[in-house]
Amino acid sequence: MPPITFLPSGVVIESQKGETILDAARRAGLSVEVPCGGRGICKKCVVQVLSGDIIREDNPLLSKSMLDDGYAMACKTLISDGSAVRVRLLSDVESEHGAFSEQSEDMLLVDPELLPKAGEMAPMTQMTAVRPALPVSGDGLSDYDRFASALADALQAVSTDGAALAIHLPLRLLRALPLIIRQSETLRVAYFVDDGQASVVDIQPLGSTLSNSAAELRVGVALDIGTTTVAMQLVELSTGAILASKTDYNGQIACGLDVISRINYAQKPDRLEELRVKILKTINGLLDDLSEEVSIDPAGIYDMTVAANTTMVHLLLGIPPENIRLDPYVPSVNYVPIYRAGELGIEICPDAPVLIAPSVGSYVGGDISTGLLCTQLAYDSEDIFLFLDIGTNGELILGNNEFLLGCACSAGPAFEGGGITQGMRASMGAIERVAIDAVTGLATYSVIGGHAPKGICGSGMISLVASLMRSGWIDSAGQLDRERECAAIEVAGRQASYIIEPNEGMRVAVSENDIQNIVRAKAAIFSACLLLLQNVGLSFDDLSGMVIAGGFGRYLDIDDATMIGLIPKAMHDKVRFQGNTSVSGANLALVSEHHRKLLDQTAKRITYIDLSTDLGYMDQYSAALFLPHTEESLFK
Amino acid sequence: MPPITFLPSGVVIESQKGETILDAARRAGLSVEVPCGGRGICKKCVVQVLSGDIIREDNPLLSKSMLDDGYAMACKTLISDGSAVRVRLLSDVESEHGAFSEQSEDMLLVDPELLPKAGEMAPMTQMTAVRPALPVSGDGLSDYDRFASALADALQAVSTDGAALAIHLPLRLLRALPLIIRQSETLRVAYFVDDGQASVVDIQPLGSTLSNSAAELRVGVALDIGTTTVAMQLVELSTGAILASKTDYNGQIACGLDVISRINYAQKPDRLEELRVKILKTINGLLDDLSEEVSIDPAGIYDMTVAANTTMVHLLLGIPPENIRLDPYVPSVNYVPIYRAGELGIEICPDAPVLIAPSVGSYVGGDISTGLLCTQLAYDSEDIFLFLDIGTNGELILGNNEFLLGCACSAGPAFEGGGITQGMRASMGAIERVAIDAVTGLATYSVIGGHAPKGICGSGMISLVASLMRSGWIDSAGQLDRERECAAIEVAGRQASYIIEPNEGMRVAVSENDIQNIVRAKAAIFSACLLLLQNVGLSFDDLSGMVIAGGFGRYLDIDDATMIGLIPKAMHDKVRFQGNTSVSGANLALVSEHHRKLLDQTAKRITYIDLSTDLGYMDQYSAALFLPHTEESLFK
Repeated sequence: MPPITFLPSGVVIESQKGETILDAARRAGLSVEVPCGGRGICKKCVVQVLSGDIIREDNPLLSKSMLDDGYAMACKTLISDGSAVRVRLLSDVESEHGAFSEQSEDMLLVDPELLPKAGEMAPMTQMTAVRPALPVSGDGLSDYDRFASALADALQAVSTDGAALAIHLPLRLLRALPLIIRQSETLRVAYFVDDGQASVVDIQPLGSTLSNSAAELRVGVALDIGTTTVAMQLVELSTGAILASKTDYNGQIACGLDVISRINYAQKPDRLEELRVKILKTINGLLDDLSEEVSIDPAGIYDMTVAANTTMVHLLLGIPPENIRLDPYVPSVNYVPIYRAGELGIEICPDAPVLIAPSVGSYVGGDISTGLLCTQLAYDSEDIFLFLDIGTNGELILGNNEFLLGCACSAGPAFEGGGITQGMRASMGAIERVAIDAVTGLATYSVIGGHAPKGICGSGMISLVASLMRSGWIDSAGQLDRERECAAIEVAGRQASYIIEPNEGMRVAVSENDIQNIVRAKAAIFSACLLLLQNVGLSFDDLSGMVIAGGFGRYLDIDDATMIGLIPKAMHDKVRFQGNTSVSGANLALVSEHHRKLLDQTAKRITYIDLSTDLGYMDQYSAALFLPHTEESLFK
Repeated sequence: MPPITFLPSGVVIESQKGETILDAARRAGLSVEVPCGGRGICKKCVVQVLSGDIIREDNPLLSKSMLDDGYAMACKTLISDGSAVRVRLLSDVESEHGAFSEQSEDMLLVDPELLPKAGEMAPMTQMTAVRPALPVSGDGLSDYDRFASALADALQAVSTDGAALAIHLPLRLLRALPLIIRQSETLRVAYFVDDGQASVVDIQPLGSTLSNSAAELRVGVALDIGTTTVAMQLVELSTGAILASKTDYNGQIACGLDVISRINYAQKPDRLEELRVKILKTINGLLDDLSEEVSIDPAGIYDMTVAANTTMVHLLLGIPPENIRLDPYVPSVNYVPIYRAGELGIEICPDAPVLIAPSVGSYVGGDISTGLLCTQLAYDSEDIFLFLDIGTNGELILGNNEFLLGCACSAGPAFEGGGITQGMRASMGAIERVAIDAVTGLATYSVIGGHAPKGICGSGMISLVASLMRSGWIDSAGQLDRERECAAIEVAGRQASYIIEPNEGMRVAVSENDIQNIVRAKAAIFSACLLLLQNVGLSFDDLSGMVIAGGFGRYLDIDDATMIGLIPKAMHDKVRFQGNTSVSGANLALVSEHHRKLLDQTAKRITYIDLSTDLGYMDQYSAALFLPHTEESLFK
């Protein structure tokens, strides 16, 4: 079979018989976005074939002119056994790589009152020093006997109820014991207690300056696995201070943009394994980078907490996720037992316990459980709060110390730039703010990074729609004004588009369809908020506050959000943006025993409402499909 | 580098720069015996170089004529970068392979009184049926929640003290759960209880006829890992019946014949790993063969007990064994925690618990602990017994229900044919019985397999020495009669040899040195017996019986053994040969909870005496270096 060359990277591999361009790209380790899971219906995997023979199976979404120009859907285009093929990848996932690092957070956006008190600071893995008896011929005691007895004494001394704990020593450490026990009279033992058993995590000769600088410093990992973005913090366990943090794209993006397409992709065992390996690669890459930044050996990290949505938890563990999306929508696991990092494939100390935050249901995951730790909702407050985590899915939790009600809605990817013709994530080259002249209808705009625009991100779309509304160039149904003359509005048939930047080579236009996608996204979230409130007979006025979480929120202008009908006027001054509460909450659970208990209790307290079976939701949703809403008073 | 061809197998590999012939043979997967660990001092690795260039580093043990004939010590001979090399391996370990199968035992040589009673039959892994609640939308219960709750109920129902057990579900099974829980309303769960935790071993849909015929039949594995020989039984757990059994050479033989040379060999981490992989290959090969014989899938085997000497336990687990042979002679582990088969690399159900029988000390291992289960010594008997397991090491246990005294002595490999010029194991071609004419001094003999003799085995040596004594051709110091004329006795300088078979091509001769090796072996064992008795003020007359264990005993003639001074006259009628008690005891512990408790208790009861520090032992040993003994009355 002929070679296939991928541009712009220039990677060459030999193609295989019957292989699609998508298959070949994946084999070559290249990222191609396939939100639809490779079913030929999303058009995101389009590539340009520059030379060579291909066989297009069925590319219905491409126009004749695109086909003439060599465009093809990678998932539905085979490589023929003729000449060498050269393909240009159009997806820019790879080239965006690393742009996120600027967005990382170096402090927690959490009310200081909610942070752990000094007495609560205790990571899951504890340290103790033991002094095994010296070896004596004829006493019948092995190295292991002497070690276990010394450890049992040490544990007894710190036991709160005086009960003896069973000791589990991993085989890895039994193998290391003969050497270590002869290196120092005193050993430093890392262990954690779970289900009445003390499991040893590591043993080091005391005072050794071996590969354990992290253990000296006592560093742990807080991890948030989002469908799109993975965020990690290295945390000093004694203080909770963030030593370093970084975000990266979830390596699974190439297999589907949202959880449903990932679940579809994972239906074959080898693909489930592929997804598992991909997320591990992302996680271990972040671990590598951050460990290097702080100059520690990741093998000396003994603590890790993971916050992730329910599907991401399944994929990390290699558990088939399909029942999440099949009636009756039951996840295979909510409360994950404590497994060891080595079992999971995470490259810290192999026997370190990994705490995975509990999920509430199929679409309210551990990322929400940890997120609540950053709000009053997990604490003993009578004030009623609404917590809103906006991503591809929106998750909402309403309540106080007496009740917690949760639901999820599908906002779609529009807020993250998905489903928008020229949409992109909030990274270099994205238009993020638009202002429109009420008279001429022409736009001025700002671009992330300050260069020529490449597209528009979610907050840019909200800014655009709000500006169109303020300047009167759009009506409440989302229709652009076709009556007044405006150089920025182009009409083609029944569709009109708004041209933000008309110049060739950097042209950015937004269609009415694109605007409808934003309207649908805000309608999904706002109507879910309203429904949740109605469920308990409350209104926005009863709320003491509203927390908006998620990377999206960090760039959102509150006035714009109120203008388009995403946030009601009543909440305008009560909204607090807290960024990635998922990783922040994972940080709290990492360092504080009290917060780990709260995490469990809070997840258990949530009553989950399934909006898809709620008859009122569709009515609410329909009423919200206007700018700002059929009930304008909520926003003015 | 040139290719190197190994005969007789004909295996060819490319040699590597600076590599010895031994290294190359190992890379090629061929077995070469290296009792000395490759230090050039044992001569066992001698090969014949038929063609090609070699560089002998230092071959001091080979005569000029041997060197002229192309003989070389594989461990001390490099391959030069000249022409292709052809080498004939002389070690016959490979060619003997499988000869053992005739020796396998299909029933236990155990007093029926000592076998488990019906009420005691209980393997470590228990089965229960559970019926998880059906999945319901909105009840917040995951697959795992429903499964764990049903299992907790089932365990509560069979709990003896009503206490709830913590449940551990391996990640492998959490991954399998979503599929299995939807295959059948009732699930069959295999689990074992250890340290207050119920660990799940396997889950199967009830009535499934998947890969679990072994689970239906409930088959377990009893394994004995000897330094030379590995014996395995597939056992029906409900009855203890041996469904199939087989023995094989320990794959580590190529790295040293006795435990000390294995320990020396294991001093580098990669060699420790090599030894671990080699014994696993032997074990998994036996598992394959036996499973095929009984037509079961080994993945459905949930129970295994392992009996092995202390060094073999360390090597199986990958624990550096060197402290066993270093002052103060402390093993790294006696009581091995329960690890899973998958962790150990044993190819049965990966989560099956592996019970490794406890060791007593550096040279009295778990093979002795299980062996005692086959004798009165582990039971509540007032009668005093002496248990003697004869291999390369001899282990002795003396006692009754009030005391147990144990020691080990180094018999050397003579009883197994080692250290004898033409010595070999008791396999095809070995002379096993010799009768000598009192007048002519000529021998008649029998050969295992009935063909031309290739050498002489340990029991053949004992038979020869006893016959020489009976016919008066040897004196009490082990000197052959040089005075009378005899065609079978050749004198060269100060050394005389006895020619059993003089004909060219099948000549077998035994030197006075060889005879001294047998004398030393029997002296080591007999004097250890005597010392043990004297330690508690007893004599052979006080013994109710003597159990001789080990493959060696099966071919031993009791009259011959008494004649040469191995077994005193007083014990002639009280000796019982029980063959491989190590694997038999592993069988009992496999099927019976009562016997597992006894195994632990018995090992703990043994007081270990170190003969190397006992001043009286050398005197006793010197007195026993005669045929039969300085104190002849003991044997006549």
